[in-house]
Amino acid sequence: MKRFNRIAAMMNYLLEHPRTQVNLEYFVKKYDVSKATASDDLNVVDSTFQEEGLGKLRRVIGPSGGIQYIPELSAEKSLEYVESLCSNLSDPTRILPGGYLYMTDILGDPFCVRKIGQIIASVFADKQIDVVMTVETKGIPIAYAVASFLNVPVIIVRRDPKVTEGSSVSINYVSGSSRKIQTMVMTKRSLRENMRVCIVDDFMKAGGTINGMISLVEEFEAETAAIAVLAEADDEEEDRVIENYTSLIKISNVDIRHKKNQCTAREFFDR
Amino acid sequence: MKRFNRIAAMMNYLLEHPRTQVNLEYFVKKYDVSKATASDDLNVVDSTFQEEGLGKLRRVIGPSGGIQYIPELSAEKSLEYVESLCSNLSDPTRILPGGYLYMTDILGDPFCVRKIGQIIASVFADKQIDVVMTVETKGIPIAYAVASFLNVPVIIVRRDPKVTEGSSVSINYVSGSSRKIQTMVMTKRSLRENMRVCIVDDFMKAGGTINGMISLVEEFEAETAAIAVLAEADDEEEDRVIENYTSLIKISNVDIRHKKNQCTAREFFDR
Repeated sequence: MKRFNRIAAMMNYLLEHPRTQVNLEYFVKKYDVSKATASDDLNVVDSTFQEEGLGKLRRVIGPSGGIQYIPELSAEKSLEYVESLCSNLSDPTRILPGGYLYMTDILGDPFCVRKIGQIIASVFADKQIDVVMTVETKGIPIAYAVASFLNVPVIIVRRDPKVTEGSSVSINYVSGSSRKIQTMVMTKRSLRENMRVCIVDDFMKAGGTINGMISLVEEFEAETAAIAVLAEADDEEEDRVIENYTSLIKISNVDIRHKKNQCTAREFFDR
Repeated sequence: MKRFNRIAAMMNYLLEHPRTQVNLEYFVKKYDVSKATASDDLNVVDSTFQEEGLGKLRRVIGPSGGIQYIPELSAEKSLEYVESLCSNLSDPTRILPGGYLYMTDILGDPFCVRKIGQIIASVFADKQIDVVMTVETKGIPIAYAVASFLNVPVIIVRRDPKVTEGSSVSINYVSGSSRKIQTMVMTKRSLRENMRVCIVDDFMKAGGTINGMISLVEEFEAETAAIAVLAEADDEEEDRVIENYTSLIKISNVDIRHKKNQCTAREFFDR
């Protein structure tokens, strides 16, 4: 195999296996090269990741040492992308009855969802997340995108228990905006004590749903290590029941009569 | 930028943008190289994709010509992966009351879900799919994975209408196994006439849910071009209401008393 192909193949392998420790020996055997050559090749891969703003290779020292690809989208690229989303969301035809914003097309675009996941995963790169949690339905694709860059599993919290998920734990919580009592159900096998959980959702109004997930995490004696939402409604800020979260987009001043709204990316980068 | 870095960067760009037409000019400008050099570099990328069994570059001829990366997992790699899933699913602790199989952990693993999506997308590589459709909840991650390799959007069919999705179309259908009448709802903005739809779900018993989605597609005067499920229950085959589908795994002879079941990958590759 030529060096060009080998480097490209190594890069692809690392992109497919983010945050997975790979021993140098693996590449030495796979491509039948010396340790020094494999190491040189990995330097090229590392510099490419860094130049393209895609993250870096982390060297793990010790007898079982190796490398790990840590995906990270640079702050500039993240901001650029979030701003393009904001201008897309400001389209007046997106305003729905009740002041809601139509985002189904954005959440239905796999490329867009992966970028959002990459941005959130970059913010939480050092939080030692063990698992990503979301509640059905619209947060699911974002949760998977975040999890794929953090190399951790996803737990989907349900509204009703399902026979196909085995025994479950359920809690009741108060929805923040409508003040209704609702139920959340989670498979018992999915979370263990002391795991560090990253809660992800598509949209936050008062934060009741996220608060419900925090209670579920406590029920399992696990820890909520990070909270992220794609967008938050600024107008509900007074009633907000949670603190310490990351949101990429703040939607404010939704004016149903004049079909206008304001989306800003600032909040996310001010924190 | 050195040639090694440039090739690695081009490869990364193409991996991130599958099935997107990229003009040679784009790389010529981005990396400040001649057309001949860019073309040589793309040949290296192409041969790496092919050697690694990851797909190929397709050249688009004409004045606006360029290249497209077509991701395809080779049949050997697909079979190998599906067989490893089968041996995992044969674990007796997976059998739940009612003869269901616990698959939540597999569907919660983003790496595994992406591989499943890559395998399904490879089977449908030439079907000219415009959109992937699934019904909430468990099929969603697989649908996004398939869509990301086909570079098309995802439509999530809901069980109830949601205010955040605008006006919707709903149908009633008969669930195949329980013979109950159920409802499906879809956002009106999401599907247009003559679009070619790929229906994806995690599990099929008699096929009633998939049949419901086929009716929804007809309602929009679109076309069901392909159907794929991760697993199907073999024991329900007599009652099955749909034909022409791809399933990766066949689950048969589920024996609740002796906690045994049989999972085979054969079906998928026999078709």
